[in-house]
Amino acid sequence: MVEWLGSFGKSKSNGVTRQLYSNEWRCAQQALEKRMKKIGLDVYFDDVGNLFGRLTGSQEDSTTILTGSHIDTVIDGGKYDGAYGVIAGMIAMQYLFEYYGVPKKNIEVVSLCEEEGSRFPMTYWGSGNITGVRTMEDVRNLVDLQDTSFIKAMHESGFGQGEYRQPKRDDIDCFVELHIEQGEVLEREEKSIGIVSHIVGQRRYEITVIGESNHAGTTPMAWRKDALYVASGLIQLLIQKARETNSDLVATVGQINLEPNIANVIPGKATFTIDIRHSEDDVIDRFSMGIFKEFQSITDSHNTELRIKNWMNEKPVKMCEKLIEISESILNKDQTPYKKMASGAGHDSQVFGSFCPTSLLFVPSHKGISHSPHEFTSTEDLEKGIRLLIKVLYELAY
Amino acid sequence: MVEWLGSFGKSKSNGVTRQLYSNEWRCAQQALEKRMKKIGLDVYFDDVGNLFGRLTGSQEDSTTILTGSHIDTVIDGGKYDGAYGVIAGMIAMQYLFEYYGVPKKNIEVVSLCEEEGSRFPMTYWGSGNITGVRTMEDVRNLVDLQDTSFIKAMHESGFGQGEYRQPKRDDIDCFVELHIEQGEVLEREEKSIGIVSHIVGQRRYEITVIGESNHAGTTPMAWRKDALYVASGLIQLLIQKARETNSDLVATVGQINLEPNIANVIPGKATFTIDIRHSEDDVIDRFSMGIFKEFQSITDSHNTELRIKNWMNEKPVKMCEKLIEISESILNKDQTPYKKMASGAGHDSQVFGSFCPTSLLFVPSHKGISHSPHEFTSTEDLEKGIRLLIKVLYELAY
Repeated sequence: MVEWLGSFGKSKSNGVTRQLYSNEWRCAQQALEKRMKKIGLDVYFDDVGNLFGRLTGSQEDSTTILTGSHIDTVIDGGKYDGAYGVIAGMIAMQYLFEYYGVPKKNIEVVSLCEEEGSRFPMTYWGSGNITGVRTMEDVRNLVDLQDTSFIKAMHESGFGQGEYRQPKRDDIDCFVELHIEQGEVLEREEKSIGIVSHIVGQRRYEITVIGESNHAGTTPMAWRKDALYVASGLIQLLIQKARETNSDLVATVGQINLEPNIANVIPGKATFTIDIRHSEDDVIDRFSMGIFKEFQSITDSHNTELRIKNWMNEKPVKMCEKLIEISESILNKDQTPYKKMASGAGHDSQVFGSFCPTSLLFVPSHKGISHSPHEFTSTEDLEKGIRLLIKVLYELAY
Repeated sequence: MVEWLGSFGKSKSNGVTRQLYSNEWRCAQQALEKRMKKIGLDVYFDDVGNLFGRLTGSQEDSTTILTGSHIDTVIDGGKYDGAYGVIAGMIAMQYLFEYYGVPKKNIEVVSLCEEEGSRFPMTYWGSGNITGVRTMEDVRNLVDLQDTSFIKAMHESGFGQGEYRQPKRDDIDCFVELHIEQGEVLEREEKSIGIVSHIVGQRRYEITVIGESNHAGTTPMAWRKDALYVASGLIQLLIQKARETNSDLVATVGQINLEPNIANVIPGKATFTIDIRHSEDDVIDRFSMGIFKEFQSITDSHNTELRIKNWMNEKPVKMCEKLIEISESILNKDQTPYKKMASGAGHDSQVFGSFCPTSLLFVPSHKGISHSPHEFTSTEDLEKGIRLLIKVLYELAY
């Protein structure tokens, strides 16, 4: 079924490109709609394009157990990212209905319209609308790289015009998301399942070192204010400190840009990004404050100027302890090797986590490769994930 | 006269843009042609567009004392770079002829068509043709950024079709070039004249560190092969060693590029340039070999790959000792403060230096600023340079 869903938007390199409100996206949601109907679910869209398949519970006015993940992909991404969670939810519900009949509580599987932010500068559009942290106002002026407006693309897909129910929900009991790890931890440690305790907080900074651009031949070493030389010292310090500080903290300099960036000119300006992640906001705070104090004294000692801009600050999100315990007890009983871990990447569970009890469960990613046609998880591991999801949903809804 | 010549190709920011075979370039050469005629010189072009003004000497079959510099500029460059040497040569010859009449040897001032390489990927086109190290074959396939071919641009300016004499010369006795320093040494040390002993050798490398691109959130610090982290360590080492090694050696990393250069992805590849200059080739050799040995052991220890490509290797060029002595004796007599120094930048004298006895003389550049509308040398210093040139030419030709 992963292969089947991956055929919608299949790229030349055998990856998947299924961007929000594209043709491929629409075909995939419509195909899922059919499948959901076929296995006996009540199916409906909401007005932003989230697709739901529902088993109504026997309890009157029951709340809803929600499972699923996102249907959109990055450009030339993998078959598993997002899609696996949607398919797993459908298979689990089909199984539960066949073997145990009507649940007490409502169960719904959702194919969320968007998480990646790879077409428009907007992430978590699906989960954000369900939880009320995103509204139409947020996308009013957005356009994609082809200058197509968000609103126009949404309308052309049939959404955003009030034809379907409003996306905001107040009946969600809890959210359970099954996803590939997108990291190498489970594979290296030979665990089949990851139970996520936290989604880490992400802090991003833009650091600028301002020196003095000068001729590479006529300026003696001692008189230089070389912005790249100073910046490279800061990068060394940052990464070394991150390696020493805390085994769970990660810090990355992914981007650097120089001015003028010419071989025979001393760089006058170096700008680089820092991405720091940890499951505790305090740890990120202490780490970055400590680092920036040292940055200041280094740039001062080289007569250069330091500028620090914080442009992203996502707080860590704790997953629900009770749901974690349910998974742990199931896996212990089954003798399935698992690891309790933080998620270093963002997921829809991060949005649901501040809204309702939420659990994020991982299966291994081969070599940690993701957002790539080479994304792969073995059928055995995929099945173990689904088996766990079935048991968790049973615990919660029956 | 510097202002007058600067009006040909004057840019909005009060700089000068006078690229090879452009309209501005042609107007400037034609205006110089008129001025040279007006002061009584015999004037001619050669077939690549070098412009000469000649005082024929009284000795039969005399060789020629050549002075001058280049007329072309970088985009939005300064008024002094190149132009000053041409103007100084004209003023000096006018003065010499008025006060001392016909010289024994021929004296010529040359306005060289091209040195900067800022329109086509070709430098020293003017001096290279005179000395025979450049020929039409070298430019056969060159185009500028607007896709105009070198040959077409040359033809449209009236050159390259055999209408003028062939540029290669065999009658040059020596070449004397007066130029702005384009560095800050003379100003800082309060000297009016720089007598260049060597033009430094330039070695350029492209260094590539190949690590592994990975997710910034899901890859623990200990498992990373971060190409930028390793590269920044190499840059630190290089610059620190250059500062310690030898006060005359300069090493510059002017350019760095990452792949993929995205804030939340660990860089898989970092490529940077190294520019090393010194007046002795041996020193450059020993320095770079020592550095690269350490580079290798650092990249090995991080499980990354190192690639080193040498893409430029210009040997140091010694200026003529006899000519240096002439200048020194003049300046000592006049009690003009001067400095014997290496030139960290390339000049036409570098090309002439391997062809005939050559002397390169500097006047100060305010704050070392060059290739900029802010390029500036005081009238007093410009005059001191011209006074020296007059006396040198007198020594050589009368």
